[in-house]
Amino acid sequence: MVKVKVGILGATGMVGQRFVQLLADHPWFEISALAASGRSVGKTYSDACHWVLLTRMPKSVAEMEVQECKPGLDCRLVFSALPGDVAGPIEEDFAAAGYIVCSNASAHRLNPRVPLLIPEVNPDHLALIETQRRRYGWPGFIVTSPNCSSTQLVMALKPLQEAFGLARVLVVTLQATSGAGYPGVASLDILDNVIPHIGGEEEKLESEPLKLLGRLEGGEIKGAELTISAQCNRVAVRDGHLECISVELRRKAELGEVITALEGFRGLPQELGLPSAPRRPILIRREEDRPQPLLDRYAEKGMAVVVGRVRRCPVLDYKLLVLGHNTIRGAAGGAVLNAELLKAQGYLD
Amino acid sequence: MVKVKVGILGATGMVGQRFVQLLADHPWFEISALAASGRSVGKTYSDACHWVLLTRMPKSVAEMEVQECKPGLDCRLVFSALPGDVAGPIEEDFAAAGYIVCSNASAHRLNPRVPLLIPEVNPDHLALIETQRRRYGWPGFIVTSPNCSSTQLVMALKPLQEAFGLARVLVVTLQATSGAGYPGVASLDILDNVIPHIGGEEEKLESEPLKLLGRLEGGEIKGAELTISAQCNRVAVRDGHLECISVELRRKAELGEVITALEGFRGLPQELGLPSAPRRPILIRREEDRPQPLLDRYAEKGMAVVVGRVRRCPVLDYKLLVLGHNTIRGAAGGAVLNAELLKAQGYLD
Amino acid sequence: MVKVKVGILGATGMVGQRFVQLLADHPWFEISALAASGRSVGKTYSDACHWVLLTRMPKSVAEMEVQECKPGLDCRLVFSALPGDVAGPIEEDFAAAGYIVCSNASAHRLNPRVPLLIPEVNPDHLALIETQRRRYGWPGFIVTSPNCSSTQLVMALKPLQEAFGLARVLVVTLQATSGAGYPGVASLDILDNVIPHIGGEEEKLESEPLKLLGRLEGGEIKGAELTISAQCNRVAVRDGHLECISVELRRKAELGEVITALEGFRGLPQELGLPSAPRRPILIRREEDRPQPLLDRYAEKGMAVVVGRVRRCPVLDYKLLVLGHNTIRGAAGGAVLNAELLKAQGYLD
Amino acid sequence: MVKVKVGILGATGMVGQRFVQLLADHPWFEISALAASGRSVGKTYSDACHWVLLTRMPKSVAEMEVQECKPGLDCRLVFSALPGDVAGPIEEDFAAAGYIVCSNASAHRLNPRVPLLIPEVNPDHLALIETQRRRYGWPGFIVTSPNCSSTQLVMALKPLQEAFGLARVLVVTLQATSGAGYPGVASLDILDNVIPHIGGEEEKLESEPLKLLGRLEGGEIKGAELTISAQCNRVAVRDGHLECISVELRRKAELGEVITALEGFRGLPQELGLPSAPRRPILIRREEDRPQPLLDRYAEKGMAVVVGRVRRCPVLDYKLLVLGHNTIRGAAGGAVLNAELLKAQGYLD
Repeated sequence: MVKVKVGILGATGMVGQRFVQLLADHPWFEISALAASGRSVGKTYSDACHWVLLTRMPKSVAEMEVQECKPGLDCRLVFSALPGDVAGPIEEDFAAAGYIVCSNASAHRLNPRVPLLIPEVNPDHLALIETQRRRYGWPGFIVTSPNCSSTQLVMALKPLQEAFGLARVLVVTLQATSGAGYPGVASLDILDNVIPHIGGEEEKLESEPLKLLGRLEGGEIKGAELTISAQCNRVAVRDGHLECISVELRRKAELGEVITALEGFRGLPQELGLPSAPRRPILIRREEDRPQPLLDRYAEKGMAVVVGRVRRCPVLDYKLLVLGHNTIRGAAGGAVLNAELLKAQGYLD
Repeated sequence: MVKVKVGILGATGMVGQRFVQLLADHPWFEISALAASGRSVGKTYSDACHWVLLTRMPKSVAEMEVQECKPGLDCRLVFSALPGDVAGPIEEDFAAAGYIVCSNASAHRLNPRVPLLIPEVNPDHLALIETQRRRYGWPGFIVTSPNCSSTQLVMALKPLQEAFGLARVLVVTLQATSGAGYPGVASLDILDNVIPHIGGEEEKLESEPLKLLGRLEGGEIKGAELTISAQCNRVAVRDGHLECISVELRRKAELGEVITALEGFRGLPQELGLPSAPRRPILIRREEDRPQPLLDRYAEKGMAVVVGRVRRCPVLDYKLLVLGHNTIRGAAGGAVLNAELLKAQGYLD
Repeated sequence: MVKVKVGILGATGMVGQRFVQLLADHPWFEISALAASGRSVGKTYSDACHWVLLTRMPKSVAEMEVQECKPGLDCRLVFSALPGDVAGPIEEDFAAAGYIVCSNASAHRLNPRVPLLIPEVNPDHLALIETQRRRYGWPGFIVTSPNCSSTQLVMALKPLQEAFGLARVLVVTLQATSGAGYPGVASLDILDNVIPHIGGEEEKLESEPLKLLGRLEGGEIKGAELTISAQCNRVAVRDGHLECISVELRRKAELGEVITALEGFRGLPQELGLPSAPRRPILIRREEDRPQPLLDRYAEKGMAVVVGRVRRCPVLDYKLLVLGHNTIRGAAGGAVLNAELLKAQGYLD
Repeated sequence: MVKVKVGILGATGMVGQRFVQLLADHPWFEISALAASGRSVGKTYSDACHWVLLTRMPKSVAEMEVQECKPGLDCRLVFSALPGDVAGPIEEDFAAAGYIVCSNASAHRLNPRVPLLIPEVNPDHLALIETQRRRYGWPGFIVTSPNCSSTQLVMALKPLQEAFGLARVLVVTLQATSGAGYPGVASLDILDNVIPHIGGEEEKLESEPLKLLGRLEGGEIKGAELTISAQCNRVAVRDGHLECISVELRRKAELGEVITALEGFRGLPQELGLPSAPRRPILIRREEDRPQPLLDRYAEKGMAVVVGRVRRCPVLDYKLLVLGHNTIRGAAGGAVLNAELLKAQGYLD
């Protein structure tokens, strides 16, 4: 099979590096273009990039020249790891120029014509692509992946919504420092400390899941009728967000049913056997002190979420913990899975 | 004024050390006895104790001989920092022998005849002392202070309960490692990690506040009609527990009213000017990223709780953060304040 | 090929777990016995062991019963991860009972009849086995591997000794907490801190290298004529010891020669292609800020040492940094490589 | 006594904040001007400054307007916490305009006409001021304080030099993250890691002490005949640099003599009773595991250095550990002590 040429926008940042890492040996995709901001343009990737991942920079990209973030890149699809404040118009330019854009940026997530996609959760939302193209007259299109905290929350909520309905969700997060990119969180701010605020995060966590769990009706997404309250904290952990969740179900359920619903959850990526799909999207741990970021963040290569301590909540119905790898499943890996779904569904033909 | 002689049971542990630190220059109390487990007995305090606080061990105690934890100590009142599994009978022996016991241990906290006391919250519960003495025939008596997490939670809830009534509370904690004592949490367990479980902590946090916020009726405490759901986590912080709280009030209130109620809160210790009382039991921070353990744990010498990010909760009524110093206000300092109240109320005469 | 049955003494501790991890899929060895102290005996390994490694406990051992640390185990060779204070007599019992003992404990390291072995450095020291057996009348024998800090130091010193001779070495270590085992270092001791002392470590680091770099003469080891001064510190790092070294050479050498000697170093394990041998025992990094524990500890699966910042020293001759994985190359992995050398040399036939 | 008006250049950075903290209640000095870079000018100090110290920002400065870093400030003396790359010409402008400049920046440290001063070590070097003024024709003058690592090293070396002479010094540092300012070291770089390189630090540590320990001859400093070799590391510690030192003395000495020399060390600040002078510049700890950054950094309010583990070195003569607070004694506190010496010596009259 000839591999699809892909480019990475914002390739030198932390999420950009994860894209490089995940795509370096991808069976379907081949990195043919790296793009970043002005001060990197013209340099080799290894010169432009302060590589911060624990595996080595793949040799195949080290000598590639970093290009400008504008159409003209030699590829069919671009992954966008651009910062939220510049991503919007750049991604539109690429879609207008015929590229397929798989974006990890927030700019278009809540745009009603742009799919906000988790392949296990709402693959049918890809139907928005048609509306999007018609509306904007683009030969290409944009598909977005959610905020890291939303992704893992929604993956855990989806089977509960399907089985019992969801009324209310309270979530408190303990988020890793890699979520802020590099250099990101200063060591003086986090060593022996917790920072109980992450700009914009609670708003995302209270809104994105409603779209993700929404229903497609007449070519539009009708948001889920669900209320979410979020409190977000930064803790001294390198990778892996932990979420403490309480849920109120619409239909009462036994503990066993809840666990069965979570554990049995499978989606289209599992059915299609997409290359980056975890065998099981949700792993259940039964120990009283799991999941833990250090021990569970690389479950299924960082593509599964790990759920633990499912138990009754005296205030709402159930409490549980959800852990996910924020820069893999919650960012680059999620977007790569989106692209794999697009390919499997014929959008790249 | 002649100072009251006090002893410390479990003097070599982390909370025992805090007692020593707080009592070394106390205006009303004087340390006249230090007691600990068998392997320390007979040694000087400086030999028996692996001092882990950041201030130096007070010279006045360094050469004191560590004694057995049994009646016979030369003092009027004992502070108990004994481990939960041995505290019960030892504390009873002391009460039976005529000592006043101010305990930080969990053994007697939920005993309906023993006051579980926070001087700003429920000083009227001291009335239980009379019942206790009659019932057990003790010349002395026992007063307990709550678990660290309960203390700071209840200090923040009390003014809300008074002003608006409380129906339901959801709390997620991010707790410091000092809460587990010394050596306590292994560095390999917490470095680059979160441990989402603390043995027995959620149970305490869901039960102790009901007694603390309960009403004294006919010589008994009638527990508050309030439902609490707790999730407890250990994070890589030395001192200072952070709690993320959502509350449902019985009477609807504006945000301004809620903040006013918290900020205006004063209790008997403030009125009486007790030596260890914070000027204000609750400090309100208005920054979007406070309180933080590192920056706020020593507010009012660690005796105040710091509240921040008070805001509407889409699921219950209000969300807020509460931070307290777990081994000062949440342990030794809380018990010392209890003793000061006892003295001010004439129980030591 | 039929695999050699091996047992692990002290299997539940941190180094014992590393043995389990490294041997679970070993091409030459097969774990047939796990032994530990009294409180674990009779339990399954998964019940007896608080597994602290980041990979999962191999399924093949989870249900194995933990046995006593005494001869009778069904195996040909035992790896010893016993604590230093009990290892000595137990290991002797096994050798006397015909077992081959590959020990990571300190008990017999400096015994002149027991090889202290790093396969790349002094494989000829295996000649001591014959002396040992004759002297003690044992059908089995003991081979030891050095302290973690000594191993990586000596691997870096060996090529310098060969090429230029060594007169004096000053070494300051920054050691990971896993070196103290589990629970080991308390989080309250190391969070926001350095502990500038590790019991017995400096003595080991000043003596073991002399034997390792010594010459075999007439069936005995003549210690290297080399003076070492060590200062050892514990830092807040999970795995990977970093050593800051200054060396005085006996023959003056250019910087290029020094680097060439280090980079070109190969030993018998590389020649023989032993399964656990790193392709290159020493990797040279040329960046100004490498090696770093986080980035370099898993070089060659943790079996290589990584050297960096080789530069002139104004006081002695050269300064350099050496990093090694303390529980892989510096402990279990080193002992496994020793066993592989024994097998390759016919000692297991 | 009327207080001397002082200004702070670079007042919003980490060292600038330490100046504010140390000068807020100073008996001799009064902050009358705060200056910083362009983006802070015109704002109040509390708006311009991201305060990162653990004590509160003093009220007296919160509403002061931040001014430009150029002459015209209403004060007699300026403390400079400017970055090394801009400090040089600005400090010269102030000296030329008649101000006394106490600088913590590196720009003029090695200028042969500018005193590099530690009041306990080389107060006689103030004689350079006269030369400086004559040479440059300045009505004011510049006095500098050394790099943080140099300060604590030299304070420990001075009594050894005086008593025994010094030939060679090897030093390996474990430095706190606050030494890099704020935001400084990224948490992703240091959490579970060591960075074995600090730009320019080894060069400073190998050169500044030679001037500090040099002799004043004919109005010039003759550098000490001493060879220093430094290796510098960044570790996950908030404050407090630890240095592992080996020294070769010119005259052989017994261990007891060495300790006596260190312990008995006093300087002019102690004699004059300068307000910020520690009672003893060097504190000796005799425990085998001290000094530790966490426990010892605030010795004498951060103005003393703490020395421990003084013992024989098999390679050179003695090994010892030196700990100092890098932003107090090693930066702002050191410069304030310099200013106090200037005042006591009549330079501010």
